[in-house]
Amino acid sequence: MTLDPIDLTAQLVRCPSVTPHEAGALEVLREVLEGGGFSCTRVDRNGTPNLFARFGEKAAGRTFGFNGHTDVVPVGDEASWTRPPFSGEIADGILWGRGATDMKSGVAAFVAAAVDYVTQTPPTDGAIVIAITGDEEGVATDGTVALLDWMRAEGETMDVCIVGEPTCPDAFGDMMKIGRRGSLNARITARGVQGHAAYPHRAANPIPVLAALVDALSRHSLDQGTAHFDPSTLVVTSFDTGNLATNVIPAQCSAMLNIRFNDAHTGAELSDWLRAKVARACEGTGITMDVEISISGESFVTLPGPFVDTVRQAVEAETGRAPVLSTSGGTSDARFVKNLCPVVEFGVVGKSMHQVDEHVAVDDITALKNVYSRAIRAYFDEV
Amino acid sequence: MTLDPIDLTAQLVRCPSVTPHEAGALEVLREVLEGGGFSCTRVDRNGTPNLFARFGEKAAGRTFGFNGHTDVVPVGDEASWTRPPFSGEIADGILWGRGATDMKSGVAAFVAAAVDYVTQTPPTDGAIVIAITGDEEGVATDGTVALLDWMRAEGETMDVCIVGEPTCPDAFGDMMKIGRRGSLNARITARGVQGHAAYPHRAANPIPVLAALVDALSRHSLDQGTAHFDPSTLVVTSFDTGNLATNVIPAQCSAMLNIRFNDAHTGAELSDWLRAKVARACEGTGITMDVEISISGESFVTLPGPFVDTVRQAVEAETGRAPVLSTSGGTSDARFVKNLCPVVEFGVVGKSMHQVDEHVAVDDITALKNVYSRAIRAYFDEV
Repeated sequence: MTLDPIDLTAQLVRCPSVTPHEAGALEVLREVLEGGGFSCTRVDRNGTPNLFARFGEKAAGRTFGFNGHTDVVPVGDEASWTRPPFSGEIADGILWGRGATDMKSGVAAFVAAAVDYVTQTPPTDGAIVIAITGDEEGVATDGTVALLDWMRAEGETMDVCIVGEPTCPDAFGDMMKIGRRGSLNARITARGVQGHAAYPHRAANPIPVLAALVDALSRHSLDQGTAHFDPSTLVVTSFDTGNLATNVIPAQCSAMLNIRFNDAHTGAELSDWLRAKVARACEGTGITMDVEISISGESFVTLPGPFVDTVRQAVEAETGRAPVLSTSGGTSDARFVKNLCPVVEFGVVGKSMHQVDEHVAVDDITALKNVYSRAIRAYFDEV
Repeated sequence: MTLDPIDLTAQLVRCPSVTPHEAGALEVLREVLEGGGFSCTRVDRNGTPNLFARFGEKAAGRTFGFNGHTDVVPVGDEASWTRPPFSGEIADGILWGRGATDMKSGVAAFVAAAVDYVTQTPPTDGAIVIAITGDEEGVATDGTVALLDWMRAEGETMDVCIVGEPTCPDAFGDMMKIGRRGSLNARITARGVQGHAAYPHRAANPIPVLAALVDALSRHSLDQGTAHFDPSTLVVTSFDTGNLATNVIPAQCSAMLNIRFNDAHTGAELSDWLRAKVARACEGTGITMDVEISISGESFVTLPGPFVDTVRQAVEAETGRAPVLSTSGGTSDARFVKNLCPVVEFGVVGKSMHQVDEHVAVDDITALKNVYSRAIRAYFDEV
């Protein structure tokens, strides 16, 4: 059996699966996987659609895993698109549509590679597991997390995993991800005493105190980078007061910030550091501040070793490019998978993701399937 | 003729003259003034009601002026008032209602004092001029400004002027105003380059640059005060971004600030200073900033001298208190009158102005009329 990943990508793009809508995408995959001999289970939780598929024995001792998502971000202004965003049109070697890069081509490529492998050379003492969610772009609390919870409860596992996110910045094969930075969001609310702008000594203005803190935090260098990570970053993303009266000193203002942190930090340590900075900023000012923190993921890295080498060599053999082993960028569901097994990410060029006229080169879809096929073969040959 | 300023105040309070509504208030005054021999002219401009009144010859060489307003600020939550806000009820020596202190009692007192004076001892070679507007609390572009424009065009003048604003902070007679600080409002808009919070090096975040500027401006001391003024103040009243996405670096943010400045500065000089500070804050940051400035009034002072002494002695003789000669507080229409002639402000205790249950002691209304009567007599006796 030889599955065409280009046609499968187009079929998936034609499902308008904007988070949290499944829109038929997981069912397209279930049909293909069951046709290839996989046993499939829908693992929906709280309305979020998820699909688990396995070929081979449960917890076989060497289980190759794939993880991905079929949901896509909204199309935005549909009138701005050159082609209808859910048409999956192919023209001049390019496949167009929302999800073409992020990440329906990745899902199609690993499903095609897995089905090809098990139908051509079924592993005798191993398994291939595929865990696909319909919510990676949203809050993601019932997506890959739900799949992993269910797997744990059912005695299912993966020994290694590739996440099919688009990882290449410029040319296919130029980058794979072996980890991700952590991400921490904080909201700082500063409170003082309202008053008339003509009598500032009778008020306590929270704006200058919060501005001084924002200035200090923005200048602070968290680290100089680590062996596998760029320096951590701290970005103040909003500062708001909402005071329309020019003669009134406001009682309250707030700031939002986002920290992307490497393995020199943990979310808990950064939370303590931030709270201490806030407390010092308030000293002697008459201003109080509250801090709300949410940590959407800790940093992690799959250290270079056998599995990273397997994927890296597959990329290099197929593309002729030695991929950079990166930990840059945002977060992905790899942050959940890393609790289960070594995980790396490799996929197509991500340039047009989340944008109008998202598209992917059809040759890259074929090449991506080949990379995945090479990685599966190498894994089972080596173990 | 002896006019009761308490009854006249109550009549005015019963007119619901919330800016820009005249609500009969100026017509009540016109009737009283014409009854006392004043010639009256409505000087409305762009729908703003204004009343000009004169007794005696035009530009007589010594013309005593009064300025005030009949408009009031909104009542806010009417259910919170102990008495209906436009009832003008008197109980236990207190007159209640919106405008009782700011400044219908002041207008009633100077109208009563002026009518008494001209009916009892009409000046043979002088004049009394009264200029009352229906918009001091609003934008005030067609209020006292329109009256002064009209007076200039008609050859009308004042040689001295009392504005009847409430000036006493605690006890009747404890303060008069001989000047006011200027007021400058600025809006600073900072622009950078939007981007993803995970890639700050590809964006230019305007928030830290504006925050550093806000911090520096808030720490800056404009002066240490002058002979007749407290130190100038600079207050940042708002800082806004409106970015709800925690993973996005915004392209733009803005800050609002208000400077209350004394006679060590002019609006133009402060505007230049602010623009230079803004330009320096942007240097080398990749951020640009626009500054919009509006100057609602320059600072002014009526230096202690014959006219200030006349009013001060009238206050002291009537109340037994030596009033502080102050330049504190917000702005008033004295900022316009000062372009025409020496101006001072004296009125009742302002504690309840602009608040729920605004009220004034009826004895203070009588005493205020007496202060004005003493000042008129002293002025015409002295010249």
